[in-house]
Amino acid sequence: MNVRQLPHVVIVGAGFGGLTAAKGLRNAPVRITLVDRNNYHLFQPLLYQVAIAGLVPSQVAYPLRTIFRRQKNLAFQMGEVTSIDFEARYIKLNGSVIAYDYLLLAVGGETNFFGMESVQQNGFQIKDIESAVATRNHLLKMFEKASREADSEKRKAMLTFVVVGGGPTGVETSGALAELISHVMKREYPALNIGEARVILLEAGEALIASYPDELRRATHRLLGKKNVEVMFNARLTDYNGQRVLLADGTEIKSNTLIWTAGVKAAGITNRLGVEVAGSGRVRTEAALQLPGHPEVYVLGDAAYLENGNGQPLPMLSTVAIQQGKSVAENIQRALKGLEQKPFRYRDPGLLATIGRNAAVARIWGLSFSGLIAWLIWVVLHIYRIIGFRNRLVVFINWAWEYFFYDNQVRLITRE
Amino acid sequence: MNVRQLPHVVIVGAGFGGLTAAKGLRNAPVRITLVDRNNYHLFQPLLYQVAIAGLVPSQVAYPLRTIFRRQKNLAFQMGEVTSIDFEARYIKLNGSVIAYDYLLLAVGGETNFFGMESVQQNGFQIKDIESAVATRNHLLKMFEKASREADSEKRKAMLTFVVVGGGPTGVETSGALAELISHVMKREYPALNIGEARVILLEAGEALIASYPDELRRATHRLLGKKNVEVMFNARLTDYNGQRVLLADGTEIKSNTLIWTAGVKAAGITNRLGVEVAGSGRVRTEAALQLPGHPEVYVLGDAAYLENGNGQPLPMLSTVAIQQGKSVAENIQRALKGLEQKPFRYRDPGLLATIGRNAAVARIWGLSFSGLIAWLIWVVLHIYRIIGFRNRLVVFINWAWEYFFYDNQVRLITRE
Repeated sequence: MNVRQLPHVVIVGAGFGGLTAAKGLRNAPVRITLVDRNNYHLFQPLLYQVAIAGLVPSQVAYPLRTIFRRQKNLAFQMGEVTSIDFEARYIKLNGSVIAYDYLLLAVGGETNFFGMESVQQNGFQIKDIESAVATRNHLLKMFEKASREADSEKRKAMLTFVVVGGGPTGVETSGALAELISHVMKREYPALNIGEARVILLEAGEALIASYPDELRRATHRLLGKKNVEVMFNARLTDYNGQRVLLADGTEIKSNTLIWTAGVKAAGITNRLGVEVAGSGRVRTEAALQLPGHPEVYVLGDAAYLENGNGQPLPMLSTVAIQQGKSVAENIQRALKGLEQKPFRYRDPGLLATIGRNAAVARIWGLSFSGLIAWLIWVVLHIYRIIGFRNRLVVFINWAWEYFFYDNQVRLITRE
Repeated sequence: MNVRQLPHVVIVGAGFGGLTAAKGLRNAPVRITLVDRNNYHLFQPLLYQVAIAGLVPSQVAYPLRTIFRRQKNLAFQMGEVTSIDFEARYIKLNGSVIAYDYLLLAVGGETNFFGMESVQQNGFQIKDIESAVATRNHLLKMFEKASREADSEKRKAMLTFVVVGGGPTGVETSGALAELISHVMKREYPALNIGEARVILLEAGEALIASYPDELRRATHRLLGKKNVEVMFNARLTDYNGQRVLLADGTEIKSNTLIWTAGVKAAGITNRLGVEVAGSGRVRTEAALQLPGHPEVYVLGDAAYLENGNGQPLPMLSTVAIQQGKSVAENIQRALKGLEQKPFRYRDPGLLATIGRNAAVARIWGLSFSGLIAWLIWVVLHIYRIIGFRNRLVVFINWAWEYFFYDNQVRLITRE
């Protein structure tokens, strides 16, 4: 059979879902075109480490052409998809038309500010390399500015860091930031009274990492407290002007830094496709993740809306996207053989959130762990997961070095 | 003695000269304030590696506060010096006045386009982290664009890379770029006819690395040729519009990429100080690098104009800046003791330029080397030099890994 005649699978998005699907089709009788607006896959679970100057971008991003160098049935194209014609079966990319036989929409998510423009404008977010680097540059600049500021009111506002959102990202970011301050900044800014620095975590609800079992939520609160993160519950943000945070109950916090981690929605393109979207802009799918009326189109990851057994939508997590990528790769191969589609079932692999360098909470194999042992589980799992993308030796040595020597070489303030 | 009463040494610029002077004063009875507009020291000799995606910024930049964490007589301030009052003895930094007893001007150099605005506007340069990253992003984007360009004329212009300047930076950049293409890009862009890619090195004069002995200049030419770099001599650039390079003899080269390495001058601030400047904006100094009429002000590195024994100005090289930094640190301590100043004498440590991954030329201990042996000298020397700033283990492993596996994980296209 001529290669040109093989069915053409177009995968839009090289996050966890798209990447997994592409790999799952490596031996399938198809031609694959993988499309992403970046030339790298981003290891999102560690992106907050870039924001707090713990890792550099190249440690969490890996070039797609390198990942797929040996997968001969795949071609990569960098670019932004501008439109999709589901009837004529093509996408438009960089002004060119690319026809498909199967389309996988794995376009991922973006930050949801819920319409709060002041927060979007004056706050920081951690959604891609650029926003994480911008956050890092800002954090480090605040220490530089504070170190030469004589006015104590102004200095305190520079050293007050507000993280919004008590989910895993907010917990991880605030914990890691508090550690950066107490372990590293304290040494590097000897002229600064580091006691003036505060990390405040705002949670609109009554609990941190709300989906976790109660004992882990309490452990998280306790571990964050030990790291001097001030957690405020029932704290509903209403406005942020870059100088002061305003809460619904009238509380004001003077702060030059707000990091927003409290919302995700499907990437904006889902609203321009003319398909039915559910909450957070996610595209409603059939049980096997197909677009209703278009069995040749699959939607997966953050962009897909599919309900759990219990009527809840599946969470926007990398573990969901990875399992869906596998499922779609399998279902495409079933379709090619004329077999029926298998509905997607999510198998919860457990929960895991880290709170700094030697503390985490984990729910795994039906057991709850917290403290150092959960952190060790986290380290092993993440090193295991990341080695698919990077050479394990350098990552491992970097980590080991940092852990033993508390050295950290990436506190560069770059100009954007 | 009260610390506040110790003489205050202000060092402007944390390049090789300023850094060496600061370290040389670590045991002196002085208070030091080190000022730089960046919060890191840049290991400039390897910056071209960032531009060709061989290293990431954090491998060539190291935070100053980390470098000086243990030097208790030094405080760092990040900021831009806006003016200097040599009579009243203070500098203005971030709007504040900083008085000094001794001032070291080690402000470094910047790219000299010799007034060619079209080149400045449309060309790339490798002078700091930002411009090196911009060059890298552009180079990688050209391959992405070429890989989807059907028009062969346009594609060839995207794959034609013109480097201007046959000095060490131009030689190193063009050699490394040619290797990136033949070893890495060839594998990562299987759909591209890599034979269409060209690297052209333009030299206005008759020889590459003009200050080197003749046999090394010829070896350089030969080694570049082996790597498929096309060297053009007597090639005087007159215009570049982003699409085509125009030479004085009327030759046109269609190219979307021009990297300018053909000129350096002292940093712009030297022209605003009201002091006498010589060629390239460098400040004329006395024999011990003091500003005429102001023995308490030293100028060093690229910013200083001092002649050799033979009537030539000292070259703008890191080795000169380092030796001058040592000399000034010593002379300040002599001045504190009432001893007379020692004139600066440059001891030529040899010459060294690399042409890719296994080839270099070196002039050292009065001997000339070229090829692999010169490259091994280069590797050992650079690893030796860089370990003062970074932990040697990670650098060494990164290098070894790259060398043995030809793997290269930093080909990220980031958005500026």
